[in-house]
Amino acid sequence: MKWCRFELPTGPSHGSIVGNDVLELSGPPFEQVNYTGRTFRFDELTLLPPVMPQNFYAAGRNFTDHIDWANHYHGMTLKVPQQADIGYRSPNALVGSGGNIVIPKNSTGSIEFEGELVAIVGRKAKGLTPENALDCIAGYTLGNDLSERDYQKSDSTLWRAKNIDTFKPMGPVVNTTLDPTQQVISVRVNGQQASSYSTSKMIFSLEHFLVRMTEFVTLHPGDVIWLGCDGPTLPALKPGDLVEVVNDNIGVLSNRVVKA
Amino acid sequence: MKWCRFELPTGPSHGSIVGNDVLELSGPPFEQVNYTGRTFRFDELTLLPPVMPQNFYAAGRNFTDHIDWANHYHGMTLKVPQQADIGYRSPNALVGSGGNIVIPKNSTGSIEFEGELVAIVGRKAKGLTPENALDCIAGYTLGNDLSERDYQKSDSTLWRAKNIDTFKPMGPVVNTTLDPTQQVISVRVNGQQASSYSTSKMIFSLEHFLVRMTEFVTLHPGDVIWLGCDGPTLPALKPGDLVEVVNDNIGVLSNRVVKA
Repeated sequence: MKWCRFELPTGPSHGSIVGNDVLELSGPPFEQVNYTGRTFRFDELTLLPPVMPQNFYAAGRNFTDHIDWANHYHGMTLKVPQQADIGYRSPNALVGSGGNIVIPKNSTGSIEFEGELVAIVGRKAKGLTPENALDCIAGYTLGNDLSERDYQKSDSTLWRAKNIDTFKPMGPVVNTTLDPTQQVISVRVNGQQASSYSTSKMIFSLEHFLVRMTEFVTLHPGDVIWLGCDGPTLPALKPGDLVEVVNDNIGVLSNRVVKA
Repeated sequence: MKWCRFELPTGPSHGSIVGNDVLELSGPPFEQVNYTGRTFRFDELTLLPPVMPQNFYAAGRNFTDHIDWANHYHGMTLKVPQQADIGYRSPNALVGSGGNIVIPKNSTGSIEFEGELVAIVGRKAKGLTPENALDCIAGYTLGNDLSERDYQKSDSTLWRAKNIDTFKPMGPVVNTTLDPTQQVISVRVNGQQASSYSTSKMIFSLEHFLVRMTEFVTLHPGDVIWLGCDGPTLPALKPGDLVEVVNDNIGVLSNRVVKA
């Protein structure tokens, strides 16, 4: 099943996707599946982030080639993590597929994409085991973990490097059945492929994160876990660019870059 | 006005506090004030965190004496921040006044309180100025930014140091009218005062944070900003201890420490 969240004049709504039809639901399918009877055309909808998470988790460094590349290209001193320490992003920064990425007026740094697989939590979970960990996941979508590299160097937290309004595109839709270890994630800039990698190369798997995290924290429906990216994150994005994160089983997360 | 959020068999509710009476409201007062007509007794309620924020901001290091103390006592190398870089906590960790603080089974580190003033955002805000910044604040409550110091040293993020379930007590109530620059915040452990400081000694004021933050991020109703603590954060908490964060204009945020 694929589903999406979209904007109506009355507020956000949800729908199950069948071809180009969207059958409206009374809420997100991980709560319950009740059809309202209304149908929309997918290509006419204004998409929203599939969920607005209560807790917004991000794996950060989770692929060796990306760490090597960042150290070589950006002169960073990132280390391969020895344990799965989850990080955070902030929901203010979320925007759906089709929304603009707005570079702040005074930004001077390189604006770089990071195309990622995103797991969406569907039920409350604590104390998961490797055997049942994935049972709490309602589905998968795509995320673009945009970074502003000057702020990443100057600030003592990631608040401006990663969490500026619109710097976390998420979508376009949720696929409830795919193998998170076998996805190819690509990024295109203005139609040209800039990056492509397989999620099979994650340092720590989603199951591993889920088991370790839920020893200490309770997961809640709608929480998201962004799983990190591999490889380079260039070319730097300029106003006017179209950046797309692509996966065959989810679709295309597409956002235009503009200057404030 | 003081108000609170509390647990009913039907779910969370809100109420305006008059003496020991709580006049139930149809929602948080920063949305609208509609009385339902029902009244409860404050001392019989199970309190909840006053809000469940979409974005959970924390100033972190915002008092010089606390930085000096942490460097001296814990051998840390914290620096006085040169700019107001806001950090994050995660809502999974929130618990109301009266709830237990649960130390995880395998925790070995010192569990330390940090009593803080918390500002609650009441309306959407971007591009604030020093003149209008505080207009977006709906009121103030107290927070206990509990830390596990071993995890703080071993982990590459603050996920276990700060965001274990129940490690962010918040409450007991919201006071909508107080001066955030002139509050005395004290912490008591088992009835003995362990810390007391004035918010007048903040490095960066709430206005300063609000102006700087809203150059880059939109604030949303229910977002919270924890403003940091001053002074020492000892004695370390043990199972059985009662830890209380106290302010004359807000009340007493009271939580018992237990072992999982």
